[in-house]
Amino acid sequence: LIHHPVVDKNGQTITAAVTALDLHDIARAARTYGIGAYYVVTPLTDQQALVAEIVDHWVSGFGASYNPDRREALTMIRVKSTLEEVVTELSQNEEVKPQIVVTSARMADSDLSYAGLRDLNRDQRPLLLLFGTAWGLAPEVLAQADYRLAPIRGGEVYNHLSVRSAAAIILDRLLGEA
Amino acid sequence: LIHHPVVDKNGQTITAAVTALDLHDIARAARTYGIGAYYVVTPLTDQQALVAEIVDHWVSGFGASYNPDRREALTMIRVKSTLEEVVTELSQNEEVKPQIVVTSARMADSDLSYAGLRDLNRDQRPLLLLFGTAWGLAPEVLAQADYRLAPIRGGEVYNHLSVRSAAAIILDRLLGEA
Repeated sequence: LIHHPVVDKNGQTITAAVTALDLHDIARAARTYGIGAYYVVTPLTDQQALVAEIVDHWVSGFGASYNPDRREALTMIRVKSTLEEVVTELSQNEEVKPQIVVTSARMADSDLSYAGLRDLNRDQRPLLLLFGTAWGLAPEVLAQADYRLAPIRGGEVYNHLSVRSAAAIILDRLLGEA
Repeated sequence: LIHHPVVDKNGQTITAAVTALDLHDIARAARTYGIGAYYVVTPLTDQQALVAEIVDHWVSGFGASYNPDRREALTMIRVKSTLEEVVTELSQNEEVKPQIVVTSARMADSDLSYAGLRDLNRDQRPLLLLFGTAWGLAPEVLAQADYRLAPIRGGEVYNHLSVRSAAAIILDRLLGEA
């Protein structure tokens, strides 16, 4: 989940604030679908500290005994300053560079369908799915993609899902048992 | 989205508090998938007023001009005190009683698959999908179901999605274009 660089409603590159429910909801979805790790990317050290504080509350603090299911989800969160740090860590852990799949509600030139995404997941190389906060991933992130996933369509012209909903739906389309 | 009667982690019946992001996220998903209306059920008048205030901000207030897409989503929200009021209104509007489909992550005796749900949606009778806040719908709500939808499975034993994520995934399984 990328907080920088993302764009605002006018297309300007910004750093978005971390939202607590993005941490919870996407961690719970990641755990439900058996994802390897959930990386939260922000260059702001105070925001990194906020994420660490929330994770700590639920993993080691009061939340851990109050709600063990939530603990299990939030242990999946890893905080990084940049996308490059994520790619470096994954490349070291997996001994191969991950395939980067970018997501966007406004992707005009997508080159990966959901069937294609499931096929890709049968490869040996790990997948790194990128989601943008605010109004979505900045062009320089989109440019680093190996694949550009098709937008989610619900049969309407309107498609303005929250990033929490979009991440849940994309994980379900990739890994869900219907 | 039912805030009463729902159960807490110990299975006791409670009234859950309204969460602003439940309003936003589920409204945006409802609009994306072309749902007729999004009913928010709470018997607490102060909570009903809170929902009205949030909706008003985005539909008529500053939010409407700041973010017209959000406006379009939040116009779908209807506040009711009880499930019965929802069923009565829908029955009057649609001139037929809706088919009630309940959802739960812990449904041991489900009788409706996702293929079955899509088939059901081809009927003339409207569908009313019920989602519970807190630890889920109370037994007396489950007992009013015409159908009990199978839990979402992600290939893991763990399935503790937020109600926001679960609603998004279920709408996508029902109406999404893969």
